[in-house]
Amino acid sequence: KLLINVSGRRFETWRNTLEKYPDTLLGSNEREFFYDEDCKEYFFDRDPDIFRHILNYYRTGKLHYPKHECLTSYDEELAFFGILPDVIGDCCYEDYRDRKRENAE
Amino acid sequence: KLLINVSGRRFETWRNTLEKYPDTLLGSNEREFFYDEDCKEYFFDRDPDIFRHILNYYRTGKLHYPKHECLTSYDEELAFFGILPDVIGDCCYEDYRDRKRENAE
Amino acid sequence: KLLINVSGRRFETWRNTLEKYPDTLLGSNEREFFYDEDCKEYFFDRDPDIFRHILNYYRTGKLHYPKHECLTSYDEELAFFGILPDVIGDCCYEDYRDRKRENAE
Amino acid sequence: KLLINVSGRRFETWRNTLEKYPDTLLGSNEREFFYDEDCKEYFFDRDPDIFRHILNYYRTGKLHYPKHECLTSYDEELAFFGILPDVIGDCCYEDYRDRKRENAE
Ligand SMILES: [Zn+2]
Ligand SMILES: [Zn+2]
Ligand SMILES: [Zn+2]
Ligand SMILES: [Zn+2]
Repeated sequence: KLLINVSGRRFETWRNTLEKYPDTLLGSNEREFFYDEDCKEYFFDRDPDIFRHILNYYRTGKLHYPKHECLTSYDEELAFFGILPDVIGDCCYEDYRDRKRENAE
Repeated sequence: KLLINVSGRRFETWRNTLEKYPDTLLGSNEREFFYDEDCKEYFFDRDPDIFRHILNYYRTGKLHYPKHECLTSYDEELAFFGILPDVIGDCCYEDYRDRKRENAE
Repeated sequence: KLLINVSGRRFETWRNTLEKYPDTLLGSNEREFFYDEDCKEYFFDRDPDIFRHILNYYRTGKLHYPKHECLTSYDEELAFFGILPDVIGDCCYEDYRDRKRENAE
Repeated sequence: KLLINVSGRRFETWRNTLEKYPDTLLGSNEREFFYDEDCKEYFFDRDPDIFRHILNYYRTGKLHYPKHECLTSYDEELAFFGILPDVIGDCCYEDYRDRKRENAE
């Protein structure tokens, strides 16, 4: 099990779960750059609430879009962790796309 | 009191509270499969925010549906923990059913 | 400072803050019934997310209503902690009253 | 790294991150007034959910407005931490302004 500290909130998951997506920050060696030897955990100075959706993606293979979150800040978290919006599930894709269009106007 | 670790977030409740519903994962012996001897806690690699509603079900006998959550991901968590959507309270059932219909279109 | 454990989530506040409202569960001696000597904390088998609004009431004197929460479950938490909906702030009262009417229909 | 305890929820961030905005409570010496020597952490008896947006501001330079939160309570947290609503990002400013107008009616 790996311990991931996101701005003070601790998440735990299996190493295997993360390594399902080796092209992303958490699934690749790139994550070692964020390892804190003293605390035996990965530390990210990022948003803890949106991180929940990022971790769920590794578990389920689907990314969900939280309607009540700001789209810009959601997109920034995805970009940081190297995840493309392409993996947003069918269940959430329409909401995501609509919000994107609204913002573009 | 039992300690339940859901992707790093700790929940605590009484053993009695869980055993009210012996046909569900948490209320039956099935939960022992997820027991971590070293940490003296149950560990689930599942969504921590939706789990709050699952635990509330054991406490109150009613399941609430959080409107701002993706329906698909909510349904997946219920299925994992062996809870049927039948137990959604009257207070939330209409919202749940409407969302279900929307998604089916 | 007092430590309050709500289903596993820890909250901390000043004793003074709670004692501002002696007619409520947390502000009166009634809270001692929930004290756990071993852990040196109060333990409540209640909803941790809604509790945030309850604690904010003690700090600010105003109760806010979270629109995305089920009204029934919000009302049940208030009732448990001995807080009357009268103390909902002007900022949130209209939303609360509208939701109440909707549900009554 | 600094540890910030907001009503019992722990946040961690880099000292540098906070010092980007020296005119705010957290970015200035004013924060030392809230330091708890025994726990080696800053303690604020404030709302933990809204604090997430405040900390994100220091990290990203943009303040986001959570639509589902009460505007009044959001404004009160900003005022406490010495942050002006001017720094709300373009992504969220329209929602914030609209809500402000609604409330003023
Ligand atoms: Zn979804
Ligand atoms: Zn409900
Ligand atoms: Zn309010
Ligand atoms: Zn925004």
